[in-house]
Amino acid sequence: MIYREHLTIETRGRGTHEITGQVQQVVGRSGVDRGLCLLFIHHTSASLIVCENADPTVRHDLERFAARLVPDGDPSFHHDSEGPDDMPAHIRSILTMTSLSIPIENGRCDLGTWQGVFLWEHRTSPHRRRISVTVTGADDAS
Amino acid sequence: MIYREHLTIETRGRGTHEITGQVQQVVGRSGVDRGLCLLFIHHTSASLIVCENADPTVRHDLERFAARLVPDGDPSFHHDSEGPDDMPAHIRSILTMTSLSIPIENGRCDLGTWQGVFLWEHRTSPHRRRISVTVTGADDAS
Amino acid sequence: MIYREHLTIETRGRGTHEITGQVQQVVGRSGVDRGLCLLFIHHTSASLIVCENADPTVRHDLERFAARLVPDGDPSFHHDSEGPDDMPAHIRSILTMTSLSIPIENGRCDLGTWQGVFLWEHRTSPHRRRISVTVTGADDAS
Repeated sequence: MIYREHLTIETRGRGTHEITGQVQQVVGRSGVDRGLCLLFIHHTSASLIVCENADPTVRHDLERFAARLVPDGDPSFHHDSEGPDDMPAHIRSILTMTSLSIPIENGRCDLGTWQGVFLWEHRTSPHRRRISVTVTGADDAS
Repeated sequence: MIYREHLTIETRGRGTHEITGQVQQVVGRSGVDRGLCLLFIHHTSASLIVCENADPTVRHDLERFAARLVPDGDPSFHHDSEGPDDMPAHIRSILTMTSLSIPIENGRCDLGTWQGVFLWEHRTSPHRRRISVTVTGADDAS
Repeated sequence: MIYREHLTIETRGRGTHEITGQVQQVVGRSGVDRGLCLLFIHHTSASLIVCENADPTVRHDLERFAARLVPDGDPSFHHDSEGPDDMPAHIRSILTMTSLSIPIENGRCDLGTWQGVFLWEHRTSPHRRRISVTVTGADDAS
Protein backbone atom coordinates (compact mmCIF):
# COMPACT_ATOMS: atom_id res chain seq x y z
CA MET A 1 0.00 0.00 0.00
CA ILE A 2 1.05 3.59 -0.63
CA TYR A 3 0.04 6.47 1.61
CA ARG A 4 1.09 10.00 0.80
CA GLU A 5 0.79 13.46 2.31
CA HIS A 6 2.47 16.73 1.47
CA LEU A 7 4.04 19.04 4.00
CA THR A 8 4.07 22.78 3.35
CA ILE A 9 6.75 24.60 5.30
CA GLU A 10 6.99 28.37 5.50
CA THR A 11 10.66 29.09 6.10
CA ARG A 12 12.01 32.26 7.66
CA GLY A 13 14.97 32.42 5.31
CA ARG A 14 18.30 30.61 5.45
CA GLY A 15 18.59 27.99 8.15
CA THR A 16 17.41 24.57 9.26
CA HIS A 17 13.80 23.76 10.10
CA GLU A 18 13.11 20.49 11.96
CA ILE A 19 10.31 18.38 10.44
CA THR A 20 10.79 15.14 12.42
CA GLY A 21 7.52 15.56 14.36
CA GLN A 22 5.46 16.28 11.26
CA VAL A 23 6.93 13.27 9.45
CA GLN A 24 6.18 11.00 12.43
CA GLN A 25 2.58 12.25 12.40
CA VAL A 26 2.17 11.33 8.73
CA VAL A 27 3.53 7.85 9.46
CA GLY A 28 1.08 7.54 12.34
CA ARG A 29 -1.87 8.52 10.14
CA SER A 30 -0.79 6.01 7.46
CA GLY A 31 -1.47 3.06 9.76
CA VAL A 32 1.75 1.41 8.55
CA ASP A 33 3.46 -0.60 11.27
CA ARG A 34 6.54 -1.81 9.42
CA GLY A 35 7.77 -0.30 6.19
CA LEU A 36 9.50 2.69 4.69
CA CYS A 37 8.99 6.44 4.72
CA LEU A 38 10.34 8.26 1.66
CA LEU A 39 10.77 12.03 1.66
CA PHE A 40 11.24 14.22 -1.42
CA ILE A 41 11.66 18.00 -1.55
CA HIS A 42 10.27 19.69 -4.67
CA HIS A 43 12.89 22.46 -4.90
CA THR A 44 16.44 23.15 -6.07
CA SER A 45 17.33 25.80 -3.49
CA ALA A 46 16.28 23.98 -0.30
CA SER A 47 17.18 20.43 0.70
CA LEU A 48 16.84 17.64 3.27
CA ILE A 49 19.38 16.61 5.89
CA VAL A 50 19.52 14.26 8.86
CA CYS A 51 21.39 16.09 11.61
CA GLU A 52 22.15 15.90 15.32
CA ASN A 53 19.04 17.40 16.96
CA ALA A 54 20.11 17.99 20.57
CA ASP A 55 22.54 20.93 20.42
CA PRO A 56 21.50 23.85 18.16
CA THR A 57 25.16 24.87 17.95
CA VAL A 58 25.64 22.01 15.49
CA ARG A 59 23.34 23.69 12.97
CA HIS A 60 24.95 27.09 13.52
CA ASP A 61 28.38 25.58 12.84
CA LEU A 62 26.97 23.80 9.79
CA GLU A 63 25.55 27.06 8.46
CA ARG A 64 28.88 28.83 8.94
CA PHE A 65 30.69 25.98 7.18
CA ALA A 66 28.32 26.10 4.19
CA ALA A 67 28.68 29.88 3.92
CA ARG A 68 32.44 29.49 3.76
CA LEU A 69 32.37 26.54 1.33
CA VAL A 70 29.95 28.24 -1.10
CA PRO A 71 30.24 32.00 -0.53
CA ASP A 72 27.32 34.26 -1.42
CA GLY A 73 28.21 36.66 -4.20
CA ASP A 74 31.26 34.65 -5.32
CA PRO A 75 32.39 36.43 -8.51
CA SER A 76 32.88 33.07 -10.27
CA PHE A 77 29.09 32.56 -10.24
CA HIS A 78 27.35 34.00 -13.31
CA HIS A 79 23.84 32.87 -12.33
CA ASP A 80 22.77 35.60 -9.90
CA SER A 81 19.45 36.79 -11.30
CA GLU A 82 17.77 36.29 -7.91
CA GLY A 83 20.66 37.71 -5.88
CA PRO A 84 24.03 36.72 -4.39
CA ASP A 85 22.49 33.69 -2.60
CA ASP A 86 20.90 32.30 -5.80
CA MET A 87 23.69 30.04 -7.13
CA PRO A 88 25.00 29.10 -3.64
CA ALA A 89 21.48 27.84 -2.82
CA HIS A 90 21.57 25.48 -5.83
CA ILE A 91 25.04 24.17 -4.95
CA ARG A 92 24.20 23.67 -1.25
CA SER A 93 21.11 21.70 -2.33
CA ILE A 94 23.15 19.48 -4.65
CA LEU A 95 25.71 18.75 -1.91
CA THR A 96 22.96 17.55 0.46
CA MET A 97 19.78 15.48 -0.17
CA THR A 98 16.76 15.83 -2.42
CA SER A 99 15.31 12.49 -1.26
CA LEU A 100 15.64 10.36 1.87
CA SER A 101 14.28 6.96 2.89
CA ILE A 102 13.77 6.01 6.54
CA PRO A 103 12.77 2.58 7.92
CA ILE A 104 9.50 2.33 9.87
CA GLU A 105 9.29 0.00 12.87
CA ASN A 106 6.34 -0.20 15.29
CA GLY A 107 4.49 2.53 13.46
CA ARG A 108 7.27 5.11 13.71
CA CYS A 109 10.34 6.25 11.75
CA ASP A 110 13.16 4.31 13.37
CA LEU A 111 15.61 7.18 13.80
CA GLY A 112 18.77 7.03 15.88
CA THR A 113 18.73 8.71 19.30
CA TRP A 114 20.26 11.96 18.03
CA GLN A 115 18.84 12.00 14.51
CA GLY A 116 16.45 14.73 13.46
CA VAL A 117 15.11 15.31 9.95
CA PHE A 118 15.48 18.89 8.76
CA LEU A 119 14.51 21.00 5.82
CA TRP A 120 17.49 23.23 5.06
CA GLU A 121 16.47 26.54 3.49
CA HIS A 122 19.36 27.92 1.45
CA ARG A 123 17.81 31.20 0.27
CA THR A 124 18.20 34.19 2.57
CA SER A 125 14.54 35.26 2.19
CA PRO A 126 11.50 33.30 3.47
CA HIS A 127 10.02 30.74 1.07
CA ARG A 128 7.09 28.32 1.00
CA ARG A 129 8.50 24.79 0.56
CA ARG A 130 6.75 21.54 -0.35
CA ILE A 131 7.83 18.06 0.76
CA SER A 132 6.22 14.74 -0.23
CA VAL A 133 6.02 12.09 2.49
CA THR A 134 5.31 8.63 1.04
CA VAL A 135 4.69 5.66 3.35
CA THR A 136 4.76 2.07 2.11
CA GLY A 137 4.53 -1.20 4.01
CA ALA A 138 2.28 -3.48 5.98
CA ASP A 139 -0.39 -2.13 8.30
CA ASP A 140 -1.16 -3.25 11.86
CA ALA A 141 -3.72 -5.80 10.84
CA SER A 142 -1.65 -7.62 8.25
CA MET B 1 4.41 -4.41 -8.54
CA ILE B 2 7.92 -3.66 -9.72
CA TYR B 3 8.71 -2.37 -13.19
CA ARG B 4 12.29 -1.75 -14.26
CA GLU B 5 14.17 -0.45 -17.26
CA HIS B 6 17.79 0.53 -17.75
CA LEU B 7 18.94 3.71 -19.42
CA THR B 8 22.22 3.73 -21.31
CA ILE B 9 23.68 7.21 -21.67
CA GLU B 10 26.64 8.00 -23.91
CA THR B 11 28.25 11.04 -22.32
CA ARG B 12 30.48 13.51 -24.15
CA GLY B 13 32.85 13.86 -21.22
CA ARG B 14 32.58 16.00 -18.12
CA GLY B 15 29.28 17.80 -17.70
CA THR B 16 25.60 17.35 -16.94
CA HIS B 17 23.22 15.38 -19.13
CA GLU B 18 19.47 15.81 -18.53
CA ILE B 19 17.53 12.54 -18.25
CA THR B 20 14.18 13.87 -16.99
CA GLY B 21 12.36 13.06 -20.23
CA GLN B 22 13.71 9.52 -20.44
CA VAL B 23 12.75 8.85 -16.81
CA GLN B 24 9.22 10.18 -17.40
CA GLN B 25 8.91 7.85 -20.40
CA VAL B 26 9.85 4.82 -18.29
CA VAL B 27 7.23 5.83 -15.71
CA GLY B 28 4.66 6.17 -18.49
CA ARG B 29 5.44 2.69 -19.84
CA SER B 30 5.19 1.19 -16.33
CA GLY B 31 1.49 2.01 -16.13
CA VAL B 32 1.95 3.12 -12.50
CA ASP B 33 -0.35 5.98 -11.59
CA ARG B 34 0.72 6.62 -8.00
CA GLY B 35 3.96 5.34 -6.55
CA LEU B 36 7.70 5.85 -6.50
CA CYS B 37 10.45 6.00 -9.08
CA LEU B 38 13.91 4.96 -7.82
CA LEU B 39 17.04 5.74 -9.80
CA PHE B 40 20.44 4.14 -9.31
CA ILE B 41 23.64 4.82 -11.25
CA HIS B 42 26.00 1.84 -11.60
CA HIS B 43 29.27 3.85 -11.51
CA THR B 44 31.69 5.53 -9.11
CA SER B 45 32.83 8.32 -11.42
CA ALA B 46 29.44 9.65 -12.55
CA SER B 47 26.47 10.55 -10.34
CA LEU B 48 22.88 11.78 -10.17
CA ILE B 49 21.72 15.27 -9.23
CA VAL B 50 18.45 17.19 -9.20
CA CYS B 51 19.22 20.68 -10.48
CA GLU B 52 17.54 23.83 -11.74
CA ASN B 53 16.73 23.07 -15.41
CA ALA B 54 15.83 26.47 -16.88
CA ASP B 55 19.11 28.38 -17.03
CA PRO B 56 22.15 26.43 -18.34
CA THR B 57 24.40 28.95 -16.54
CA VAL B 58 23.53 27.12 -13.31
CA ARG B 59 25.26 23.96 -14.51
CA HIS B 60 28.24 25.89 -15.82
CA ASP B 61 28.66 27.56 -12.42
CA LEU B 62 28.24 24.19 -10.73
CA GLU B 63 30.94 22.68 -12.92
CA ARG B 64 33.32 25.54 -12.13
CA PHE B 65 32.60 25.15 -8.40
CA ALA B 66 33.31 21.40 -8.49
CA ALA B 67 36.56 21.94 -10.39
CA ARG B 68 37.70 24.38 -7.71
CA LEU B 69 36.55 22.20 -4.80
CA VAL B 70 38.20 19.02 -6.12
CA PRO B 71 41.01 20.10 -8.47
CA ASP B 72 42.14 17.74 -11.23
CA GLY B 73 45.73 16.68 -10.73
CA ASP B 74 45.80 17.72 -7.06
CA PRO B 75 49.21 16.44 -5.84
CA SER B 76 47.60 15.08 -2.63
CA PHE B 77 45.81 12.42 -4.72
CA HIS B 78 47.81 9.22 -5.17
CA HIS B 79 45.15 7.38 -7.18
CA ASP B 80 45.70 8.74 -10.71
CA SER B 81 46.13 5.60 -12.83
CA GLU B 82 43.45 6.80 -15.26
CA GLY B 83 44.63 10.42 -15.29
CA PRO B 84 44.35 13.68 -13.32
CA ASP B 85 40.52 13.51 -13.34
CA ASP B 86 40.39 9.95 -11.92
CA MET B 87 40.30 10.62 -8.17
CA PRO B 88 38.34 13.90 -8.51
CA ALA B 89 35.63 11.91 -10.35
CA HIS B 90 35.28 9.52 -7.39
CA ILE B 91 35.09 12.37 -4.87
CA ARG B 92 32.58 14.36 -6.92
CA SER B 93 30.41 11.22 -7.15
CA ILE B 94 30.56 10.67 -3.39
CA LEU B 95 29.57 14.29 -2.69
CA THR B 96 26.45 13.95 -4.86
CA MET B 97 23.95 11.07 -5.31
CA THR B 98 24.23 7.42 -6.31
CA SER B 99 20.49 6.82 -5.79
CA LEU B 100 17.39 9.03 -5.84
CA SER B 101 13.69 8.38 -5.16
CA ILE B 102 10.97 10.53 -6.74
CA PRO B 103 7.23 10.39 -5.98
CA ILE B 104 4.88 9.51 -8.85
CA GLU B 105 1.46 11.20 -9.08
CA ASN B 106 -0.96 10.90 -12.00
CA GLY B 107 1.41 8.65 -13.91
CA ARG B 108 4.35 11.08 -13.82
CA CYS B 109 7.34 11.92 -11.61
CA ASP B 110 6.04 14.76 -9.47
CA LEU B 111 8.99 17.13 -9.86
CA GLY B 112 9.01 20.78 -8.81
CA THR B 113 8.63 23.41 -11.54
CA TRP B 114 12.38 23.97 -11.90
CA GLN B 115 13.62 20.49 -11.08
CA GLY B 116 15.43 18.44 -13.69
CA VAL B 117 17.12 15.08 -13.15
CA PHE B 118 20.67 14.94 -14.48
CA LEU B 119 23.43 12.43 -14.90
CA TRP B 120 26.64 14.23 -13.99
CA GLU B 121 29.65 12.83 -15.86
CA HIS B 122 32.81 13.53 -13.86
CA ARG B 123 35.41 12.06 -16.23
CA THR B 124 36.79 14.35 -18.91
CA SER B 125 36.48 11.70 -21.66
CA PRO B 126 33.18 10.28 -23.03
CA HIS B 127 31.79 7.22 -21.22
CA ARG B 128 28.85 4.85 -21.57
CA ARG B 129 26.79 5.05 -18.35
CA ARG B 130 24.03 2.76 -17.05
CA ILE B 131 21.15 3.86 -14.81
CA SER B 132 18.42 1.63 -13.36
CA VAL B 133 14.92 3.09 -13.22
CA THR B 134 12.64 1.12 -10.90
CA VAL B 135 8.95 1.97 -10.63
CA THR B 136 6.73 0.67 -7.83
CA GLY B 137 3.14 1.45 -6.95
CA ALA B 138 -0.45 1.01 -7.99
CA ASP B 139 -1.51 1.03 -11.63
CA ASP B 140 -4.41 2.90 -13.19
CA ALA B 141 -6.85 0.07 -12.81
CA SER B 142 -6.30 -0.64 -9.12
CA MET C 1 6.75 -8.04 1.10
CA ILE C 2 9.21 -6.38 3.47
CA TYR C 3 12.23 -8.15 4.89
CA ARG C 4 14.55 -6.36 7.30
CA GLU C 5 17.74 -7.07 9.18
CA HIS C 6 20.07 -4.81 11.12
CA LEU C 7 23.82 -4.80 10.74
CA THR C 8 25.97 -3.91 13.72
CA ILE C 9 29.43 -2.72 12.74
CA GLU C 10 32.24 -2.19 15.22
CA THR C 11 34.45 0.45 13.62
CA ARG C 12 38.12 0.98 14.46
CA GLY C 13 37.83 4.75 14.27
CA ARG C 14 37.90 7.06 11.28
CA GLY C 15 37.91 5.33 7.93
CA THR C 16 35.83 3.29 5.51
CA HIS C 17 34.47 -0.17 6.29
CA GLU C 18 33.14 -2.24 3.38
CA ILE C 19 29.71 -3.79 3.98
CA THR C 20 28.91 -5.04 0.45
CA GLY C 21 29.21 -8.72 1.42
CA GLN C 22 27.00 -8.38 4.48
CA VAL C 23 24.34 -6.53 2.49
CA GLN C 24 24.39 -9.21 -0.25
CA GLN C 25 23.90 -11.87 2.45
CA VAL C 26 20.82 -10.12 3.81
CA VAL C 27 19.39 -9.91 0.28
CA GLY C 28 20.08 -13.63 -0.16
CA ARG C 29 18.29 -14.50 3.09
CA SER C 30 15.30 -12.35 2.09
CA GLY C 31 14.47 -14.64 -0.83
CA VAL C 32 13.75 -11.59 -3.00
CA ASP C 33 14.70 -12.14 -6.62
CA ARG C 34 13.83 -8.76 -8.10
CA GLY C 35 13.30 -5.66 -6.02
CA LEU C 36 15.04 -3.01 -4.00
CA CYS C 37 17.44 -2.94 -1.08
CA LEU C 38 17.26 0.20 1.09
CA LEU C 39 20.00 1.03 3.57
CA PHE C 40 19.75 3.52 6.43
CA ILE C 41 22.40 4.40 8.98
CA HIS C 42 21.10 5.40 12.43
CA HIS C 43 23.82 7.96 13.23
CA THR C 44 24.86 11.55 12.55
CA SER C 45 28.63 11.05 12.73
CA ALA C 46 29.00 8.07 10.36
CA SER C 47 27.51 7.73 6.89
CA LEU C 48 27.09 5.56 3.78
CA ILE C 49 28.96 5.87 0.50
CA VAL C 50 29.27 3.90 -2.71
CA CYS C 51 32.93 3.95 -3.69
CA GLU C 52 35.44 2.29 -6.01
CA ASN C 53 36.34 -0.97 -4.24
CA ALA C 54 39.41 -2.22 -6.12
CA ASP C 55 42.21 0.17 -5.14
CA PRO C 56 42.42 1.08 -1.41
CA THR C 57 44.33 4.24 -2.40
CA VAL C 58 40.99 5.72 -3.46
CA ARG C 59 39.72 5.64 0.14
CA HIS C 60 42.98 7.01 1.49
CA ASP C 61 42.78 9.93 -0.93
CA LEU C 62 39.12 10.42 -0.01
CA GLU C 63 40.00 10.52 3.69
CA ARG C 64 42.74 13.08 3.06
CA PHE C 65 40.34 15.20 1.00
CA ALA C 66 37.68 15.14 3.75
CA ALA C 67 40.24 16.08 6.40
CA ARG C 68 41.25 19.09 4.33
CA LEU C 69 37.67 20.11 3.47
CA VAL C 70 36.41 19.89 7.08
CA PRO C 71 39.46 20.27 9.36
CA ASP C 72 39.37 18.78 12.85
CA GLY C 73 39.61 21.47 15.50
CA ASP C 74 38.64 24.28 13.10
CA PRO C 75 38.28 27.31 15.40
CA SER C 76 35.05 28.33 13.62
CA PHE C 77 33.32 25.27 15.12
CA HIS C 78 31.74 25.92 18.52
CA HIS C 79 30.30 22.42 18.96
CA ASP C 80 33.31 20.46 20.25
CA SER C 81 32.02 18.82 23.43
CA GLU C 82 33.21 15.39 22.23
CA GLY C 83 36.50 16.65 20.82
CA PRO C 84 38.01 18.27 17.71
CA ASP C 85 36.47 15.61 15.42
CA ASP C 86 32.94 16.09 16.77
CA MET C 87 31.57 18.79 14.44
CA PRO C 88 33.60 17.62 11.41
CA ALA C 89 31.95 14.19 11.83
CA HIS C 90 28.49 15.76 11.58
CA ILE C 91 29.41 17.80 8.50
CA ARG C 92 31.08 14.86 6.73
CA SER C 93 27.92 12.81 7.37
CA ILE C 94 25.69 15.54 5.93
CA LEU C 95 27.85 15.82 2.78
CA THR C 96 27.51 12.08 2.10
CA MET C 97 24.52 9.68 2.48
CA THR C 98 22.24 8.68 5.34
CA SER C 99 20.15 6.41 3.10
CA LEU C 100 20.76 4.54 -0.13
CA SER C 101 18.58 2.40 -2.41
CA ILE C 102 20.04 -0.32 -4.64
CA PRO C 103 18.19 -2.37 -7.29
CA ILE C 104 18.04 -6.16 -6.81
CA GLU C 105 18.25 -8.44 -9.86
CA ASN C 106 18.55 -12.23 -9.76
CA GLY C 107 18.61 -12.26 -5.98
CA ARG C 108 21.55 -9.86 -5.63
CA CYS C 109 22.23 -6.13 -5.35
CA ASP C 110 22.94 -5.11 -8.94
CA LEU C 111 26.09 -3.08 -8.30
CA GLY C 112 28.45 -1.85 -10.98
CA THR C 113 31.73 -3.72 -11.48
CA TRP C 114 33.72 -1.34 -9.27
CA GLN C 115 31.02 -0.35 -6.80
CA GLY C 116 31.35 -1.23 -3.13
CA VAL C 117 29.05 -0.11 -0.32
CA PHE C 118 30.91 1.35 2.64
CA LEU C 119 30.14 2.62 6.08
CA TRP C 120 32.29 5.71 6.59
CA GLU C 121 33.20 6.26 10.23
CA HIS C 122 33.91 9.95 10.82
CA ARG C 123 34.87 9.86 14.51
CA THR C 124 38.50 9.16 15.32
CA SER C 125 37.66 6.64 18.06
CA PRO C 126 36.00 3.23 17.53
CA HIS C 127 32.19 3.17 17.61
CA ARG C 128 29.43 0.60 17.35
CA ARG C 129 27.24 1.52 14.36
CA ARG C 130 23.78 0.28 13.35
CA ILE C 131 22.48 0.03 9.78
CA SER C 132 19.01 -1.09 8.69
CA VAL C 133 18.83 -3.21 5.53
CA THR C 134 15.29 -3.36 4.12
CA VAL C 135 14.47 -5.60 1.16
CA THR C 136 11.25 -5.28 -0.84
CA GLY C 137 10.12 -7.02 -3.99
CA ALA C 138 8.95 -10.26 -5.49
CA ASP C 139 10.36 -13.61 -4.37
CA ASP C 140 11.54 -16.48 -6.57
CA ALA C 141 8.20 -18.22 -6.62
CA SER C 142 6.08 -15.26 -7.67
